[in-house]
Amino acid sequence: MTSDHESSQSDAVAVAAEQQAREADITRQVLDSLRDCADPRLQEVMRSLVSHLHSFVRDVRLTEEEWSRGIEFLTRAGHITDERRQEFILLSDVLGASMQTVAVNNQAYADATEATVFGPFFVENSPEIAAGEDISFGADGEPCWVEGTVTDTTGRPVPGARIEVWEADEDGFYDTQYGDDRIAARAHLFTDADGTYSFWGLTPTPYPIPHDGPVGNLLAATGRSPMRASHLHFMVGAPGLRTLVTHIFVKGDELLDKDAVFGVKESLVKDFLRQPGDGATPDGRDLGGRSWSRVRFDIVLAPDGT
Amino acid sequence: MTSDHESSQSDAVAVAAEQQAREADITRQVLDSLRDCADPRLQEVMRSLVSHLHSFVRDVRLTEEEWSRGIEFLTRAGHITDERRQEFILLSDVLGASMQTVAVNNQAYADATEATVFGPFFVENSPEIAAGEDISFGADGEPCWVEGTVTDTTGRPVPGARIEVWEADEDGFYDTQYGDDRIAARAHLFTDADGTYSFWGLTPTPYPIPHDGPVGNLLAATGRSPMRASHLHFMVGAPGLRTLVTHIFVKGDELLDKDAVFGVKESLVKDFLRQPGDGATPDGRDLGGRSWSRVRFDIVLAPDGT
Ligand SMILES: [Fe+2]
Ligand SMILES: [Fe+2]
Repeated sequence: MTSDHESSQSDAVAVAAEQQAREADITRQVLDSLRDCADPRLQEVMRSLVSHLHSFVRDVRLTEEEWSRGIEFLTRAGHITDERRQEFILLSDVLGASMQTVAVNNQAYADATEATVFGPFFVENSPEIAAGEDISFGADGEPCWVEGTVTDTTGRPVPGARIEVWEADEDGFYDTQYGDDRIAARAHLFTDADGTYSFWGLTPTPYPIPHDGPVGNLLAATGRSPMRASHLHFMVGAPGLRTLVTHIFVKGDELLDKDAVFGVKESLVKDFLRQPGDGATPDGRDLGGRSWSRVRFDIVLAPDGT
Repeated sequence: MTSDHESSQSDAVAVAAEQQAREADITRQVLDSLRDCADPRLQEVMRSLVSHLHSFVRDVRLTEEEWSRGIEFLTRAGHITDERRQEFILLSDVLGASMQTVAVNNQAYADATEATVFGPFFVENSPEIAAGEDISFGADGEPCWVEGTVTDTTGRPVPGARIEVWEADEDGFYDTQYGDDRIAARAHLFTDADGTYSFWGLTPTPYPIPHDGPVGNLLAATGRSPMRASHLHFMVGAPGLRTLVTHIFVKGDELLDKDAVFGVKESLVKDFLRQPGDGATPDGRDLGGRSWSRVRFDIVLAPDGT
């Protein structure tokens, strides 16, 4: 289907026909074992998973020692995962499986805003704020005024759209990564009657995904960085429209072309305009002379079911 | 490479060329990120893994909810795994990935005995027994006299070959599955100067792989049984020869063609001859009138490095 796939096959060691038949027969047995699956979709997914998994083992001529290392890797990932740490999501993210799933489920539709990875840091029941209020709740960082509109693809404003926003603090940590129960740098708000929204957040800064576990080891072993390009998370939903999970990224960030989870899309890179501390703020808020930034993000939602 | 693979592609939903390009571009980005990997073999393995993983997501048009269920499945597998329970090996086994790896690493060589899955129940440092002694150490089951030779593929006997044997008791449990420190129904012994070996074990009985976890749920959801065909595990090694990990299976067992882990090979199915309790035993052992069985397993080891 894709050129990368073909190349993985042409790399394969030459295997005698008799041996190939023996290996193919094992795959056939496993596929046959799924014949009584009562759920046709589960059967389809499992058939494809088995086919690709077996092809992978054959294509690379996986050694038994490599197989053992794979089992150990998954075991360590399972053991580091808890209520606050999700190593399997990190794994999916750094392998690009998350972005591939996003791509499959969020096909481009007219001018609708593009989606990107959800990430492991969203939390249900974030605090609600009114328009223009602050989501930081004590998280450290440079203030950032965020504003924009939510419209549908015909350009009609969407009032009452629910906007969830969440981000890391200037030290690169989400609230959930501290060993306490703080809720900070996350909130939800609703668009006004004219589809506009605004809030104070923090100017996004780069941060590493948690890399003290097996996924971090994998990144190091493959010569990759755990750093994510600076970003601010959005999830935007309204009745009849496709829920959008996305980020905005910071124009000029050096990490844009090497994001650890492949989340960057050109259309999501925004100009965060730096503002000196001596000027007026959009809502007259007194920042005590601190510098701040401002960004505009106009969001276009696709119709539901697209 | 194989027909099952082609069929998984032809099942795919028709996807517009522009969308296909968008999806392929994500895979390209991930493959590019591996360019600085200092270990060429790791790079090769990861490239293939990424290619197949992405193809799987695309081929089945994996939904975001299905992706979440996959993450939850792996999380549960990680959390049930501990020193005594290895859910990821069970997963590899029931998906046939273990047997595929065995096939890739143990290509047929002349008349060498075929390999099969290692399974999760081997334990290091088993007790050593002398020829003709009993491996059961109190495990319940019908006594079974096992004897044979170890030779190389030229027919030359292999003296001093190390033979590890392990099996479930008649209730279908390995020693490690009891909540205590018992060591039973496992041992190691060495071939005599003429390459022969013999021991008392237990007549193998069918047992389910542990199925109270996510792998058991997967088997149930796909209409599969967790039962393994009755078997006795062997691991046989000697200097200069390929270490053999295998089982012998019981001729006539109804589960031979539906083994949960696809471990059965015709050449490994042996005649376990049932013996009445009133006859003589091979070594004169008094079984108190109990019935017993006997089986012959002549083992042929391939040269090392084949
Ligand atoms: Fe993030
Ligand atoms: Fe077993």
